[in-house]
Amino acid sequence: MESLARQSKALCPFLHKTSTSTLKRLSSQATIASVARGCPIMGHAMEIQESKAPHSRSYSTVREVEISKEFIEIPVNKKTAGSATATATATSANKTPAFDDKQAPFNYEKLYESDLQRKHQDKSYRYFNNINRLAKKFPHAHRATESEEVAVWCSNDYLGMGSHPVVTEAMHSTIDKYGAGAGGTRNIAGHNLHALKLEASLADLHRKEAALVFTSCFVANDATLALLGKKFPNCVYFSDEMNHASMIEGIRHSGAEKVIWKHNDLADLEAKLAKYPKSQPKIIAFESVYSMSGNISPIEAICDLADKYGALTFLDEVHAVGMYGPRGAGVAEHLDFEYHDSNCNPENLVSTNTDGSARRDVMSRVDMITGTLGKAFGCMGGYVAGSKNFIDWIRSYAPGFIFTTSLPPAVMAGANAAIDYQKSSLKERILQQAHTAYVKRELGERGIPVVPNPSHIVPVLVGNAEKAKEASDMLLEKYGIYVQAINYPTVPIGHERLRITPTPGHNKELSDHLIKALDETFDTLGLDRIKDWEKKGGRCGVAQPGYDHIKPIWTPKQLKP
Amino acid sequence: MESLARQSKALCPFLHKTSTSTLKRLSSQATIASVARGCPIMGHAMEIQESKAPHSRSYSTVREVEISKEFIEIPVNKKTAGSATATATATSANKTPAFDDKQAPFNYEKLYESDLQRKHQDKSYRYFNNINRLAKKFPHAHRATESEEVAVWCSNDYLGMGSHPVVTEAMHSTIDKYGAGAGGTRNIAGHNLHALKLEASLADLHRKEAALVFTSCFVANDATLALLGKKFPNCVYFSDEMNHASMIEGIRHSGAEKVIWKHNDLADLEAKLAKYPKSQPKIIAFESVYSMSGNISPIEAICDLADKYGALTFLDEVHAVGMYGPRGAGVAEHLDFEYHDSNCNPENLVSTNTDGSARRDVMSRVDMITGTLGKAFGCMGGYVAGSKNFIDWIRSYAPGFIFTTSLPPAVMAGANAAIDYQKSSLKERILQQAHTAYVKRELGERGIPVVPNPSHIVPVLVGNAEKAKEASDMLLEKYGIYVQAINYPTVPIGHERLRITPTPGHNKELSDHLIKALDETFDTLGLDRIKDWEKKGGRCGVAQPGYDHIKPIWTPKQLKP
Repeated sequence: MESLARQSKALCPFLHKTSTSTLKRLSSQATIASVARGCPIMGHAMEIQESKAPHSRSYSTVREVEISKEFIEIPVNKKTAGSATATATATSANKTPAFDDKQAPFNYEKLYESDLQRKHQDKSYRYFNNINRLAKKFPHAHRATESEEVAVWCSNDYLGMGSHPVVTEAMHSTIDKYGAGAGGTRNIAGHNLHALKLEASLADLHRKEAALVFTSCFVANDATLALLGKKFPNCVYFSDEMNHASMIEGIRHSGAEKVIWKHNDLADLEAKLAKYPKSQPKIIAFESVYSMSGNISPIEAICDLADKYGALTFLDEVHAVGMYGPRGAGVAEHLDFEYHDSNCNPENLVSTNTDGSARRDVMSRVDMITGTLGKAFGCMGGYVAGSKNFIDWIRSYAPGFIFTTSLPPAVMAGANAAIDYQKSSLKERILQQAHTAYVKRELGERGIPVVPNPSHIVPVLVGNAEKAKEASDMLLEKYGIYVQAINYPTVPIGHERLRITPTPGHNKELSDHLIKALDETFDTLGLDRIKDWEKKGGRCGVAQPGYDHIKPIWTPKQLKP
Repeated sequence: MESLARQSKALCPFLHKTSTSTLKRLSSQATIASVARGCPIMGHAMEIQESKAPHSRSYSTVREVEISKEFIEIPVNKKTAGSATATATATSANKTPAFDDKQAPFNYEKLYESDLQRKHQDKSYRYFNNINRLAKKFPHAHRATESEEVAVWCSNDYLGMGSHPVVTEAMHSTIDKYGAGAGGTRNIAGHNLHALKLEASLADLHRKEAALVFTSCFVANDATLALLGKKFPNCVYFSDEMNHASMIEGIRHSGAEKVIWKHNDLADLEAKLAKYPKSQPKIIAFESVYSMSGNISPIEAICDLADKYGALTFLDEVHAVGMYGPRGAGVAEHLDFEYHDSNCNPENLVSTNTDGSARRDVMSRVDMITGTLGKAFGCMGGYVAGSKNFIDWIRSYAPGFIFTTSLPPAVMAGANAAIDYQKSSLKERILQQAHTAYVKRELGERGIPVVPNPSHIVPVLVGNAEKAKEASDMLLEKYGIYVQAINYPTVPIGHERLRITPTPGHNKELSDHLIKALDETFDTLGLDRIKDWEKKGGRCGVAQPGYDHIKPIWTPKQLKP
């Protein structure tokens, strides 16, 4: 607190001119720290300070670290000034002679260049691979030239619905009848039967009163979270530290207070919730499947805490819709598999909690569910589902929904076809799980380190940025296998990985080729296997105690329909 | 300033505890007002205060008023507390007993309900019309039932490219070969030849080094402006008061200082620019065609000011791309029509300014141009074009670009086909202009008030929310004509209108039907004609002096290729 006060005095234009005695009085009260988080200057400084603390370098805070590194650094630098580029501060703008024609303008191009240079230096500069996924040869793609085909092992078209005839035929017939684009916003000429059908289908999927479609789930998360936090008086967000950038952005844009809780840590969440009055608006924001680790959140227990502390639950099922549950509604549906499979027959719901109280199905307890049409449903777009009034309210107030052109009718029709199909087909989900289990098991048997998790994601630990890129390049060039290396800042330094996503199309032959290729690549590049990680004390759950109990959430019974 | 200081003391948790003498010293300095704008509490309070000032109720500030009314009111209320819902303030959270199980949770549903109720009361609640635009019968659509066909007169598919065979055929063949969705972000499996081709084509269209595609131009504007203002030290935005919501959001999300200048008012812009040192980073953000009024901005003169004061120019050409210029690059290209038509032959550029200095073409002087693929290009998506390093920098740092699934290959291919076609075809642009001129002239001859403007937009002034909705309903039900009423908050109260957008498909027959229908509707509903507005002193340029000189920016010579 002492150092915070000193830093405050240097940074804050208000405190700067405040007497030392007033400052001492202020900093002795706990309130100042909590209020300061809302300040655009101090809030940033405090986030940076916190991100430098040892605990936040751990794996679980990667998302926050990524955002703070990339998007906050400069604003803080500019306030502390002193750099060659920061020639004028906000305050000096009104002190110095306003305008001098002889002065040089700011060198904008130099800033772009030096920022890019920094990315090259810390190896976070991204080179995009030209990958053209072939509908008739799924999961294969061609590279820059058509003759150069590769197997894609890292796409989020998890079920291959992007090339499924029910989807492509729906798109073809819709283009023939209704053309390419929607031609307007939903309010002006862009509202049509495809939007109506799709939103009804999504509401039904999640068994909610209503749903609203956005151009992406990035926009759905950003627009929804930004609005909730702006409109609820004194709203506090409780955000899992691994939340996706779109949720971090939405919460930030709301301007509301944010409390970050440790990844999937119920005790930490409860301790933090308990600090606020029950009547104060709160939103617990979290995901079901975390895409880079494959972790799954304890949704039901989080709903229990939400009930106890008077919070709303906001659940991002982006990596789960289409993939879990009897009808593909996601993990929340999957947790009451038989109940939803039987169209909500109460006999198939475990009807009492452990304490004997009545139990509701998990999905109906989640207040807001967001999802994507661009991954397991093979198309594009995002959505939020919830109560009728909530959806009407978002529809009426969110600029990211109001002021944008609707999705093309054909995209909505394609997505709707994929959802309808997945509601009544378990085939792809089960095949995908079988292929995931095979790849995880075979890699494990060869000592190749897979980050343990209960989902469909297969994160192969490399633990070094250059080696991960080399492995990705070698798989592509030598074995015709495309797996993008996931490096800092998407994962922390030392946690670099190859994120593998098997699909129903990745059969035994393709899988065996991948496994052999990985095995050889690990040898050629001398990458650490499980036994090597053991010697180093393990990492990301690999060769670490406490990860043995992790089982796939698809049970053997569910996998045999 | 006195009242500001008093208000500050009540609202600001820092100032609240500061001594009166310190406060007096602070408020006597001009700096405090400028710094306070960056504060999340005071900044909002000041915006509200300013929006209540008489001048900001004028037509030209509608966009800012809309946003402040809808999105700022609550956060300010919550800080001033006193309302029944604001049961706890941020500071009291740490003072009051933290958690009391007997307390009722916040009533979230009630908040949604009361907000929606307010929208119903002030007539700003939006009822979407189910409009299904028929590709083979452009510009017709069917309503809920297929038998009920109407002519669409308010779509932004300005050139009918959404049903043009070059677009739909490109989409069909791309779906056949590459499937429905992209399957990933640009970094992970979603980068392909369609993105490469489209971005190269867009860079060429605007004669810039590079371009970057987003899921929408809302996202392009938001992501780009948010990043620039965050990264440039002490950046100041100079934002035209009529700017689109996406730009307002982006600027707000940047956290940078914002100066709003009067719509298209160069003297006001210059007076505001002159208050800042030349070396301080500045961005002038504006549009070429303002969609609700049809106004066009003085781009070249704004570039002159940007050069003089060391600012970057950010130009939104969303309503102009495809519509202006020999190759459809927008208004900036149109201003040097012959030069660009001749593939930049310097002989076709007026080579000296009025002061004798060398002159550059306008488009190359604009630093950043954003545009859409969802209006005149008939598809979906948005983009920004600019220097190579700028584009690479946005690509590397903007979360709204990085963390979202790419556009479907077929959508990119369709958009690319539309751009390529429009680069070499003047037919649709010229026909659209001819139809616009016809409708404007014929309506004028019948005394129907069209807001004067030099563009393709035909805003028919109604001046009353209920009457505008009645007129829209009557046109739809009685005449089979769909024109959405544009009411508050999109335009200020009293400025309600029917925004008509003729296309190449709106031939004489359809136009004559529209004109007759409007004429009769004006009679039936007793709507004010030009002569009625004359008696009332005019409105929005209708029956007001100083609007006679407005001519279409397409000259008669350009319309005869």
